[in-house]
Amino acid sequence: MADLPESHPRRSSLLARQKIVDGTKKGLLADSSMIAHGRGEAFDYLLGERTTDSAAMAIRHVATLLISAERPVISANGNTVVLAGESLIRVAAVVGCPIEVNLYYRTPERVFGLLSLLQEQRDSVAEEKGPSEFKGDWGKAVRSVRLLGDEADFRIEGLEGPRSLCTEDGIGLGDLILVPLEDGDRCEALISLGKQVCVIDLNPLSRTARTASVTIVDEVSRASISLLSEVLNPTKIEGEWDNDAALRDSLKHMSNSIDRL
Amino acid sequence: MADLPESHPRRSSLLARQKIVDGTKKGLLADSSMIAHGRGEAFDYLLGERTTDSAAMAIRHVATLLISAERPVISANGNTVVLAGESLIRVAAVVGCPIEVNLYYRTPERVFGLLSLLQEQRDSVAEEKGPSEFKGDWGKAVRSVRLLGDEADFRIEGLEGPRSLCTEDGIGLGDLILVPLEDGDRCEALISLGKQVCVIDLNPLSRTARTASVTIVDEVSRASISLLSEVLNPTKIEGEWDNDAALRDSLKHMSNSIDRL
Repeated sequence: MADLPESHPRRSSLLARQKIVDGTKKGLLADSSMIAHGRGEAFDYLLGERTTDSAAMAIRHVATLLISAERPVISANGNTVVLAGESLIRVAAVVGCPIEVNLYYRTPERVFGLLSLLQEQRDSVAEEKGPSEFKGDWGKAVRSVRLLGDEADFRIEGLEGPRSLCTEDGIGLGDLILVPLEDGDRCEALISLGKQVCVIDLNPLSRTARTASVTIVDEVSRASISLLSEVLNPTKIEGEWDNDAALRDSLKHMSNSIDRL
Repeated sequence: MADLPESHPRRSSLLARQKIVDGTKKGLLADSSMIAHGRGEAFDYLLGERTTDSAAMAIRHVATLLISAERPVISANGNTVVLAGESLIRVAAVVGCPIEVNLYYRTPERVFGLLSLLQEQRDSVAEEKGPSEFKGDWGKAVRSVRLLGDEADFRIEGLEGPRSLCTEDGIGLGDLILVPLEDGDRCEALISLGKQVCVIDLNPLSRTARTASVTIVDEVSRASISLLSEVLNPTKIEGEWDNDAALRDSLKHMSNSIDRL
């Protein structure tokens, strides 16, 4: 990837792919993570690899929910940490919420590896100057982001096996959960527990996308960067959120993209 | 995958995914093969995971080209061998053509590993009863399929580095090459050498799909099974092949699928 020119039209996509390949080699990701990433790449290709207006609206809505929730929590799997860990730490610092490593294919080794990577990312983000809109001590805010997930002391009702495990202090008692790249079963289970579940999913037809309270149909690292801007400058949202309308808009966008080419 | 029920609507897709995961673990596939497979999964999902009419027409056309070519050759990369090796050995046995292992990210280890797997597949196919339409000694026909690729004694003009290497007796002197899952650069280079290039590519917008003489927009294992039927029962094709029309038809199919859901 060293020879990838700055001007390459698909540079972001190719860099993201390399992060996933590297994360897999380090044992941080499950077997099928690269396949999931490839599926996402195809949908993003159809989206034109950019944030659509309806995705931007969804991001704005998620930002206001994160800020107004009582116990918001960001749940991160391997691909999320590798692709968007630093951005989500910045978001968590602004919102003041924890990040929980929560894996569908849970192994202690991967939870440990991802928590270590998040700690490194947190150290690095804490050294930044911080966004100009942020009032307060950036380094302190970042360092106080709690990284959860090593203690699985809670079970998500309605699920079986390792995929039901989570942290009481995080997802367990959380009222609003931002789960980029979530599985359909778990999204349904969390919703039926009465939680608000916000997801980032490039496939608007997936069960996750159709089940979530708010679905951001966008690439996770791009969406996380926008989400930071929005939590720093929250916009008042009028009226109810119509998730189906947003999904239909994304589908229309992909469909038009196919027709155009 | 042991607990995947026979009736699961996405069974073929999930079994194919497992083959790619297993092939990667065995070191047979390049780093990014799983990502490429995932991209294909997304497009196949939009196709409804079935062979469209225009893909069936393309397969029929490729069958007649394979049969009438002077020096046809089937070029196979890692994903192709893992997903469709046995089907393509059957096709090669009927057509009487060689199969060349030819890799974009060429390493001697992977060429050796894939040739060994093809040899195992050939042994297994030779033991089959053979298709009822086949006239002759099936076992003998299968065992005489030559497996090329370990001797890279030819360079494809217009390409640089390991990706330019091939076998003189295969792709080098071939007049018609069936290359499932080919790269865009190599497809263009082969076409500019005056060869007919037939590809199987799930992305109708890819450079490969748009450059090839005939593009089968279909999943490689499904297409290879249909291709066997067609080389056993070739249909006379009337008129010129309009590849752009076939690509447009596939796109329309994907686009309608998006609108429908």
